[in-house]
Amino acid sequence: MSKISDVAALAGVSKATASRALSGRGYVSEETRQRVAGAAQELSYVAHSSATSLATGRTHTVGVVMPPVDRWFFSELLAGIQESLFALDYELALYGMQEGTATRDRLFDSVLPGRRFDGIIAVGIQPSAHELERLRRSDRPLVSVGPYSEGSSAVSIDDVGAARIATEHLIGLGHADIAFVGGAGDADDLSFGDAQRVEGYLEALAAAGLESIARIADSPPTMPGGYAAAVELLGDRRGRPTAIVGVCDETAIGAMIAARRLGIAVPTEISIVGIDDHQHAEMFALTTIKQSPREQGHEAVRLLQRQIDQPDAPRERSVTASALVVRSSTARRR
Amino acid sequence: MSKISDVAALAGVSKATASRALSGRGYVSEETRQRVAGAAQELSYVAHSSATSLATGRTHTVGVVMPPVDRWFFSELLAGIQESLFALDYELALYGMQEGTATRDRLFDSVLPGRRFDGIIAVGIQPSAHELERLRRSDRPLVSVGPYSEGSSAVSIDDVGAARIATEHLIGLGHADIAFVGGAGDADDLSFGDAQRVEGYLEALAAAGLESIARIADSPPTMPGGYAAAVELLGDRRGRPTAIVGVCDETAIGAMIAARRLGIAVPTEISIVGIDDHQHAEMFALTTIKQSPREQGHEAVRLLQRQIDQPDAPRERSVTASALVVRSSTARRR
Repeated sequence: MSKISDVAALAGVSKATASRALSGRGYVSEETRQRVAGAAQELSYVAHSSATSLATGRTHTVGVVMPPVDRWFFSELLAGIQESLFALDYELALYGMQEGTATRDRLFDSVLPGRRFDGIIAVGIQPSAHELERLRRSDRPLVSVGPYSEGSSAVSIDDVGAARIATEHLIGLGHADIAFVGGAGDADDLSFGDAQRVEGYLEALAAAGLESIARIADSPPTMPGGYAAAVELLGDRRGRPTAIVGVCDETAIGAMIAARRLGIAVPTEISIVGIDDHQHAEMFALTTIKQSPREQGHEAVRLLQRQIDQPDAPRERSVTASALVVRSSTARRR
Repeated sequence: MSKISDVAALAGVSKATASRALSGRGYVSEETRQRVAGAAQELSYVAHSSATSLATGRTHTVGVVMPPVDRWFFSELLAGIQESLFALDYELALYGMQEGTATRDRLFDSVLPGRRFDGIIAVGIQPSAHELERLRRSDRPLVSVGPYSEGSSAVSIDDVGAARIATEHLIGLGHADIAFVGGAGDADDLSFGDAQRVEGYLEALAAAGLESIARIADSPPTMPGGYAAAVELLGDRRGRPTAIVGVCDETAIGAMIAARRLGIAVPTEISIVGIDDHQHAEMFALTTIKQSPREQGHEAVRLLQRQIDQPDAPRERSVTASALVVRSSTARRR
């Protein structure tokens, strides 16, 4: 197998220049870069990233820890992280948060501390004090995507504000008996801003003097979860709310499907609003608070890179944009 | 920072033994393993995987190349791959198939050949001859998940059989005018067995003497895709089929939603069957052909590990299980 010295010799440059040209890190003229690339191709040269990283002390690898990717939000976020890392020529080492305490312990106690990353992006994970301590001890830059930020940089939307605006939209349409669907689930392990969204809903009701009739139907943030919670909520004709705020679009869409099954017309008999602007929101004509998890992925990488380049830079809390999108799942109260 | 020699000295073992104990690879007694682990913890020792890999020639990293993970199939498959790699203490380096030819070229021409993996799992990607040549030249074990297998091991369901059984189910219920929704899309770049599913549909019709009335409504394999195709297909009352085979559950669910919007009752006026047993299939009471992408992920890792351990072992083609699940979206033709 060819060595970097062979490539350098053929291109007529020093080993250091050849290395810079092939890694894309550090300055080389475009002409030199092309000559080195040509020599590398001719010799079928393949860089040994292990040797490179021993020499530079950097691995150009970012560890990404996230729950199993079975929700739209995580898929989009991961795509955004991938795009940005690929553009920067970073590797992405992916760690799924496995279910079960033993594998989680193994991840935080031995797997993550044993790997060499330039930084870690932790998604929707509320680490315990012990876990956070393990991550900190390794002294690597850490960016979290989600609503917490103890000592690490963080990216999220304004979850309180998003739910407040969704609820205010319904109040503005004359609704008073507004239920919130969601907010349950694995609050100990995972943290996606659900608690903040409940808070935003309650804030809006309180500002309108409606806090006494607030009600929260627990539901996991999924379509089947929203469906099941709404079947129960809407089953009793007399106690039925006139509007629902879903903790996310999947929950809200589940509630819409439940309403249709029960013969309750959306939006004439019940208004439903979500948070996300999920890929299916338009098909269901769902009014929602739009957010872009892909943009949050880009932002997480940007914050991490800054920390890698300037280890002493202050931690940042980045709030990405959200906006009300009115479609036809909400209407003035009859 | 502590070195492996410090850990070995504190534990009273050789460097080689300490290395084996910490990597989990190679035999050490449980008592020694615990003593070394204790010493490592006391010294806050963190293994340098780069140095380890230079010594062993292995990186214990598997590269996974897949399209953006925005479909249920890919999420579940990735979860399965993660579970198996985590259990084997392998790293997962994730590469998204970015859109656009330039980034794709960069991935196959320089990124993948420049990285040191013990093996690659390629998901739903039909590499070009040139791309395949690049991957082969690096001479690393390669397992593909999907319907092709040129020189690499592969995992998939029997896509032809799945669509044939779905179509035969409808024929058995007395349907003759059966449309297939799906089969369009990026056939050049991506290959998920869609073409094989069209083939299975046509085979079943031919066996029943119905090939002359076969019709295929092109649609991407998504919920909005199935919705749009079904709106067109069902819009003309006189030319309406009595049954639909969706290329996947997302397409079939999109068609169900379209039928409801158009006031066409499922299953009394139209029967609809999918392929997947998607997480939402039960909520929509969708009859489908069940498959397990998670199991396919486990299987892909199993095949890859065998190739890593025995480079001369023959390539394998593994077909995972699928089965008809009858719910209430299909019924006897009126």
